[in-house]
Amino acid sequence: MDSKKLIYAGKAKDVYETENPDEVIVAFRDDITAGDGEKKDNLQGKGHCNSLISTKLFEILEENGIATQCIELKKSCHMRAKKLEMIPLEVIARNIATGSLLKRFPFEENQKLDPPIIQMDYKNDEYHDPMLNEEITIALGIASQEDLDEIKKITLKINKILSEFLKEKGILLVDFKLEFGKDKDGNIVLGDEISPDTCRYWDINTLQTLDKDSFRQGQDNVMDIYEQVCGMIVDEKDLKKWKIT
Amino acid sequence: MDSKKLIYAGKAKDVYETENPDEVIVAFRDDITAGDGEKKDNLQGKGHCNSLISTKLFEILEENGIATQCIELKKSCHMRAKKLEMIPLEVIARNIATGSLLKRFPFEENQKLDPPIIQMDYKNDEYHDPMLNEEITIALGIASQEDLDEIKKITLKINKILSEFLKEKGILLVDFKLEFGKDKDGNIVLGDEISPDTCRYWDINTLQTLDKDSFRQGQDNVMDIYEQVCGMIVDEKDLKKWKIT
Repeated sequence: MDSKKLIYAGKAKDVYETENPDEVIVAFRDDITAGDGEKKDNLQGKGHCNSLISTKLFEILEENGIATQCIELKKSCHMRAKKLEMIPLEVIARNIATGSLLKRFPFEENQKLDPPIIQMDYKNDEYHDPMLNEEITIALGIASQEDLDEIKKITLKINKILSEFLKEKGILLVDFKLEFGKDKDGNIVLGDEISPDTCRYWDINTLQTLDKDSFRQGQDNVMDIYEQVCGMIVDEKDLKKWKIT
Repeated sequence: MDSKKLIYAGKAKDVYETENPDEVIVAFRDDITAGDGEKKDNLQGKGHCNSLISTKLFEILEENGIATQCIELKKSCHMRAKKLEMIPLEVIARNIATGSLLKRFPFEENQKLDPPIIQMDYKNDEYHDPMLNEEITIALGIASQEDLDEIKKITLKINKILSEFLKEKGILLVDFKLEFGKDKDGNIVLGDEISPDTCRYWDINTLQTLDKDSFRQGQDNVMDIYEQVCGMIVDEKDLKKWKIT
């Protein structure tokens, strides 16, 4: 990247242009936020962990036929990626009812959701990321009916692939948030990240929280948890290569 | 009805059983509420107006092939109706962006919505009638995918029929809320009411409010407006029969 132009600054990541107009660098920062940005901190090493975890999960998805933005981890915290025109949707898939869903709707806590619930929120700080339905999404010009059908289909496929992969690693995939964009040919491609910042991971045996809920709840071992998850998901050789031991 | 058992008491209507187990009496009260029940009043003659308007609009819909709960206006404020198992959905159709939609999403005020937006809220006081999407509606067991497809299809048809009918009467149908139920054979049937309590009507020339927004805004001529709308919609002979002049 080396002093390239910042294209986008998010709550926990920056995106920089590169010399190749079709590629960007996604830089994972150590910032962590919760509660619509009200709770904030900076946890040394979090960006490193999330860049490793995301790169690994994108790799698993690519192997299973899902188009992702990720090209490679260029260096710690810096993912080389395809440039996408991002769609301002937070696409949430839920396998178990917990978190904000319980405040808004009368589900039982930890109720199994099968088929999983897909929810789309409008990524819009001014309006506090409101939940959408399809008609409103289309009327706002966020996405077409065809785009929404495709996004749902891909999300359900991703849920299946990641749930199986993570289960083998001892992790229950409770819910997660995805963001999609379009590449230069108009194809819908998975972007953003898949990390403990954007998923609920529970220990498959103890149901212990292995994600950002530890930060939301004010636990003092948040980074320990992120490093534990990194060790569970990322290959030994990559942990060594990127110097997490 | 005459001292029959009260089956359901809503914010502005009561439902009583009758001697016929397949029929009920829907009794329109003069109570009026707004803002999730926070603003309340009692307007003499409102139940009378709404019962006449609803009966007329249900009649127009029936003539155009829509199954409704309404059998006949038995006496002022008392609609004889088919007994339905109500589905706890508020099905909202919007032709113009106004009201709560503008607070939640970045639409332009008075933006034309074509195709109309359909929104479904969960009729649940404890959870403050939250907006649903299809997956959540199905997961909560409120309705099946087939029911939702049917409800949307009927709602769009109703929008077309009522928009045309009301336009001839000098009224622009801005948005409206419907409630559906199932009859003893499992058919989806339109229930509840269609009145200035549940619709936004605007004068087609002046765009003046002809509905409950006059109450929300604290105007002192709310009943004048309801009586004006009643006079615009209901046939002369019925106005005479039911003694509104």
